[in-house]
Amino acid sequence: MARIRVINPNTSRAMTESIGRCARAVAEPATVVTAVNPAMGPESIESHYDEALAVPGLLAEIAAGEAAGADAYVIACFGDPGLDAARELATGPVVGIAEAAMHAATLLGRGFSVVTTLARTTGRAWDLAARYGFSGACRGVHACDIPVLELDDPASGARAVVADLCAEALARDGCDSIVLGCAGMAPFCADISRRLGVPVIDGVAVATKLAESLVSLGLRTGARGEYAPPGPKKYTGLLGGFSI
Amino acid sequence: MARIRVINPNTSRAMTESIGRCARAVAEPATVVTAVNPAMGPESIESHYDEALAVPGLLAEIAAGEAAGADAYVIACFGDPGLDAARELATGPVVGIAEAAMHAATLLGRGFSVVTTLARTTGRAWDLAARYGFSGACRGVHACDIPVLELDDPASGARAVVADLCAEALARDGCDSIVLGCAGMAPFCADISRRLGVPVIDGVAVATKLAESLVSLGLRTGARGEYAPPGPKKYTGLLGGFSI
Amino acid sequence: MARIRVINPNTSRAMTESIGRCARAVAEPATVVTAVNPAMGPESIESHYDEALAVPGLLAEIAAGEAAGADAYVIACFGDPGLDAARELATGPVVGIAEAAMHAATLLGRGFSVVTTLARTTGRAWDLAARYGFSGACRGVHACDIPVLELDDPASGARAVVADLCAEALARDGCDSIVLGCAGMAPFCADISRRLGVPVIDGVAVATKLAESLVSLGLRTGARGEYAPPGPKKYTGLLGGFSI
Amino acid sequence: MARIRVINPNTSRAMTESIGRCARAVAEPATVVTAVNPAMGPESIESHYDEALAVPGLLAEIAAGEAAGADAYVIACFGDPGLDAARELATGPVVGIAEAAMHAATLLGRGFSVVTTLARTTGRAWDLAARYGFSGACRGVHACDIPVLELDDPASGARAVVADLCAEALARDGCDSIVLGCAGMAPFCADISRRLGVPVIDGVAVATKLAESLVSLGLRTGARGEYAPPGPKKYTGLLGGFSI
Amino acid sequence: MARIRVINPNTSRAMTESIGRCARAVAEPATVVTAVNPAMGPESIESHYDEALAVPGLLAEIAAGEAAGADAYVIACFGDPGLDAARELATGPVVGIAEAAMHAATLLGRGFSVVTTLARTTGRAWDLAARYGFSGACRGVHACDIPVLELDDPASGARAVVADLCAEALARDGCDSIVLGCAGMAPFCADISRRLGVPVIDGVAVATKLAESLVSLGLRTGARGEYAPPGPKKYTGLLGGFSI
Amino acid sequence: MARIRVINPNTSRAMTESIGRCARAVAEPATVVTAVNPAMGPESIESHYDEALAVPGLLAEIAAGEAAGADAYVIACFGDPGLDAARELATGPVVGIAEAAMHAATLLGRGFSVVTTLARTTGRAWDLAARYGFSGACRGVHACDIPVLELDDPASGARAVVADLCAEALARDGCDSIVLGCAGMAPFCADISRRLGVPVIDGVAVATKLAESLVSLGLRTGARGEYAPPGPKKYTGLLGGFSI
Repeated sequence: MARIRVINPNTSRAMTESIGRCARAVAEPATVVTAVNPAMGPESIESHYDEALAVPGLLAEIAAGEAAGADAYVIACFGDPGLDAARELATGPVVGIAEAAMHAATLLGRGFSVVTTLARTTGRAWDLAARYGFSGACRGVHACDIPVLELDDPASGARAVVADLCAEALARDGCDSIVLGCAGMAPFCADISRRLGVPVIDGVAVATKLAESLVSLGLRTGARGEYAPPGPKKYTGLLGGFSI
Repeated sequence: MARIRVINPNTSRAMTESIGRCARAVAEPATVVTAVNPAMGPESIESHYDEALAVPGLLAEIAAGEAAGADAYVIACFGDPGLDAARELATGPVVGIAEAAMHAATLLGRGFSVVTTLARTTGRAWDLAARYGFSGACRGVHACDIPVLELDDPASGARAVVADLCAEALARDGCDSIVLGCAGMAPFCADISRRLGVPVIDGVAVATKLAESLVSLGLRTGARGEYAPPGPKKYTGLLGGFSI
Repeated sequence: MARIRVINPNTSRAMTESIGRCARAVAEPATVVTAVNPAMGPESIESHYDEALAVPGLLAEIAAGEAAGADAYVIACFGDPGLDAARELATGPVVGIAEAAMHAATLLGRGFSVVTTLARTTGRAWDLAARYGFSGACRGVHACDIPVLELDDPASGARAVVADLCAEALARDGCDSIVLGCAGMAPFCADISRRLGVPVIDGVAVATKLAESLVSLGLRTGARGEYAPPGPKKYTGLLGGFSI
Repeated sequence: MARIRVINPNTSRAMTESIGRCARAVAEPATVVTAVNPAMGPESIESHYDEALAVPGLLAEIAAGEAAGADAYVIACFGDPGLDAARELATGPVVGIAEAAMHAATLLGRGFSVVTTLARTTGRAWDLAARYGFSGACRGVHACDIPVLELDDPASGARAVVADLCAEALARDGCDSIVLGCAGMAPFCADISRRLGVPVIDGVAVATKLAESLVSLGLRTGARGEYAPPGPKKYTGLLGGFSI
Repeated sequence: MARIRVINPNTSRAMTESIGRCARAVAEPATVVTAVNPAMGPESIESHYDEALAVPGLLAEIAAGEAAGADAYVIACFGDPGLDAARELATGPVVGIAEAAMHAATLLGRGFSVVTTLARTTGRAWDLAARYGFSGACRGVHACDIPVLELDDPASGARAVVADLCAEALARDGCDSIVLGCAGMAPFCADISRRLGVPVIDGVAVATKLAESLVSLGLRTGARGEYAPPGPKKYTGLLGGFSI
Repeated sequence: MARIRVINPNTSRAMTESIGRCARAVAEPATVVTAVNPAMGPESIESHYDEALAVPGLLAEIAAGEAAGADAYVIACFGDPGLDAARELATGPVVGIAEAAMHAATLLGRGFSVVTTLARTTGRAWDLAARYGFSGACRGVHACDIPVLELDDPASGARAVVADLCAEALARDGCDSIVLGCAGMAPFCADISRRLGVPVIDGVAVATKLAESLVSLGLRTGARGEYAPPGPKKYTGLLGGFSI
């Protein structure tokens, strides 16, 4: 049995619930998925500023997970915020959804394209592709320019806009699969895949399976070097509670 | 339920059985693992020549798997022989064990080192790391110079030699984890991991979980471009049976 | 006249003062250097966890700088924490000290080596080198294993240990210059340079000059894409004050 | 005097003859060119599957060449199939035609574009460019979508289609030369070069000259490491004849 | 006080004067800028041939600067000709304007595009970007096809043509800033920046500030390895005067 | 018949003669090798300064070759000085000896090491490897610290020192071949190859064969872009004779 804590790093409760549903839909029966979000920070993550300020709340959720005996963690925002810090803090493995989706994409074809929300975040997607070793496999990053919190608003027409952009990316980039670049797009995944006839990859689902797999293999983050637990340190002010 | 065909591309039946045990040990209860090896080709793979000549038999096993309704395939040789051709032929996903182990390693730390059999195969390991995007993450490839078929011979002392080499790699390369560079080393994995206190990764186990995960996510190789099924073609001579 | 806000992202007041002295020592007479540190967060930065949690306080100091009319900012920690977010928030240019030191090093020779504090931070230095384009120029990253806050404690013998490690790096790596990998090493810079006869580069000093130069050239961060000011967003909990 | 064995790895006898004519047209008078093709395998190579299954026959031709005293080998298919294995098996040098053409192109300009047959093979061309170090020099890979065996069929209009595509690649990619991406295009080379006024490179011709040059320089594959002759090994089944 | 020798490597006196004005406009009051050009070589630099033949005159100007006590040098041609040789010869730092502009651009955003003169020089700009580590940051290099010496001829309409090309590059490349790819474009810099609302970077200005900064920091080229002063050597013929 | 002009870019007549002998020893009977050196410039090339100042004389020899009807050129100095400018000026192909040797090495194995003269030139060798695409294939660059002009002085013991260094490089770098990093080492090539049992590559010989091959294939530098002939331009002073 694996206890997987899926952390939505923004404070939108509706999104947390949707993410939890996606994760549970693919988890093994014996897996317990707990979907949570921080009690502090931005309600959606659409800039480096938002991302940086989502991390303390995310780390608090990791600490809470450690206390609750979580076996592994999923960071359910496509910028994979706080991944390095989370790996230091957690005993079990931590998987980001961009990381997971990109890894899966490279198992299914030579190249993938990312379809994401705001244009200003495309640089972050390229950065992550580079960090994970997938600069060559990432063929394009495209923005639909719909804000994160409007994705699930039927009035935004997001489902159709995202689907059209996926089709366009597929035609233009010569890629083998599409990576959905926001946890909020997970509910569109099956539909778009059917329409396009290529793998369309939702990082929430993949990260959940990867986390489960690592737990069942008994694998956890290597903790003898860069990812050793952070040493004792005095923290002050608003963040005093983060002292170790 | 996933039917996973784990193909040992050499003709050593003992190794096939050992590989099958490793795969079954990590598979979900509902997964059916079928471990097979080709009826033709080399009894072990220790050169580019061996690897090239293992591929026809491997592809015959993919074809047999398709006929038998396999959902996914694992190629259980650390050179990941025939991976591209297998992806064209198979309907479901195909995962190589070097690929799987390297992917897992990068989820568990910044750098990994590979411990493999013969020195002449280290170039292939570097090549694969480059192909998968992990040139930067691969910190070293070390050969124990024990032939593949002697690994399970207690007289070879392989278990201790491999463990010592892993310890040396860890100290010298500043890596976070060790990747075992031969399917024949899978039985040593748990022991070495305990001894070193870092993740030691056996590709057979990881590839089995990845194949299972992709099946449960409904993901298969993108088949609209490079990995489309091979077109009809006349084959002649010894390989006449491979005509499509 | 340029008003440069030099932000020490940890909460150690002694280190802030030392950093301020280093910056003022190289600034033009007409430049006003204001050295500050956050009111919240870790007292030193020695892990990804520390770094992530230093960023909110750093961003508060950027916001305070905007209110006070700062023309440019220096982030005076060798991990360059929060650089992307700071660039979104600030009107004027923002320069990290790792970034500054590495840029300078590549103007003075083909290769540089970094001498830093704890071994666990060497990965971050390599990451930054890669991000800035200097993977090829960075020839080595070496840790003296003295904690940040002991650097200025004469009992630690830090000055000699660091100098010896610089000499060793120079001999072993075949580099043209040494980059000091911690703001706390700035006071050692002149001495070590004299001893080694090669450029020894303190990022605090270089970043101050770069910030000054960019201001005098009228150059600021390009704000039409990734670094546009963050949009309005609701923040909650402890970080409610960061709403925009 | 050099005896060069030019191996067409597919079983099309007409193509072998055409390739032989191209090679002889550029060879020194004292060079003996023997153009052969395998007795087994696919009649043309248009997928990874075809390529993998062309290799055993190709290796049999290398073995036959060794018996006949060949001094060097050319692999006359643009995917350079079996190159590593052939290098292990052959005493003399082995040159692939993609390899040869790309090397020549980089001696004649900064960038080249490849014009090849089917779209599904463009990934392989990019892969080879990367393997040989020419990722930066390769500016484009374009497919004319004419199957290999129709190239020499006047009804296919291949000559004009290929020429037009070369012109288009030249205009679009800003390259200095064109590399023809199939041995079957060799007969078009002179015409297209005249029309475009830039170097148009046929790998069969270049590989023949490179093989000749290496022989006359007394250079052969380094055989102390990765390319040492394959060790003795039992082969079974259809491929039993490949035992060493 | 810094004595900075700004060397225009071509023999156009008008251009030297314009370059001198640009440098002086940004220098600190205490800095002495001396703008010079060689007494031999091409009147403008628009090919590798021109560039190679501009270098002897450039080196003569470095030698003259050493005799005159120059503290630092700027090479004011966007090809950064002779930079390595100049660094060997000079005691103080040497900064090229392409180098300076590209460094500054990467401090102000993730990507920059270059707008330069003749199409045949775009390869050189890409080369320099690669050499300095900025292959990833350089998003495009665009040529206006106006010869260097016509840039300041109002009849050429250069100012408008260059501005339009900058706007096009910004729209097409998704970059954060524009680098002007010729010292002769320096006078257009302020105007274009105002029009586009993004940083437009003139290398002459930036290189002057970098040279000043390095001098004030007491930093000079590392001279223990590749950039050690050239050893004594007999020179003959026309270049006999370059003996050391 | 090919007329190949082999240009030693330094002014040492003895070295020119030795280079000419090496080239003629491998040329086809019908090839006419003309070995020349400039009438101006340094007597040996051991720094960037020397290299830059060797180029005008080299270009004068290219111009003389054009007048004399040369079909191709070899630049016989391991720094490949002036290669780009020479390609613009020459109608036929131009091959550098570092370029030629490195290309050949990658046809004979996965990795090569370079053994060169002075330590200060090793950076140039790495640069060239990067430029030609062989950063990954170049496994080491080692300096024997014998000046160029002492290589052929028996008293220097150069032959033995170079041979020992080659053996050491082979053992340490895990390479498949050795590239001799100076035209002056060509006479040692056969001996060292015999001793080491791996390919030892002299660039003069390889470049001669490549130049011959390109001529016989009718291939010359692509002249529609970067390598178009330099346009008309006024040159003044000492270099007035280079006007076009």
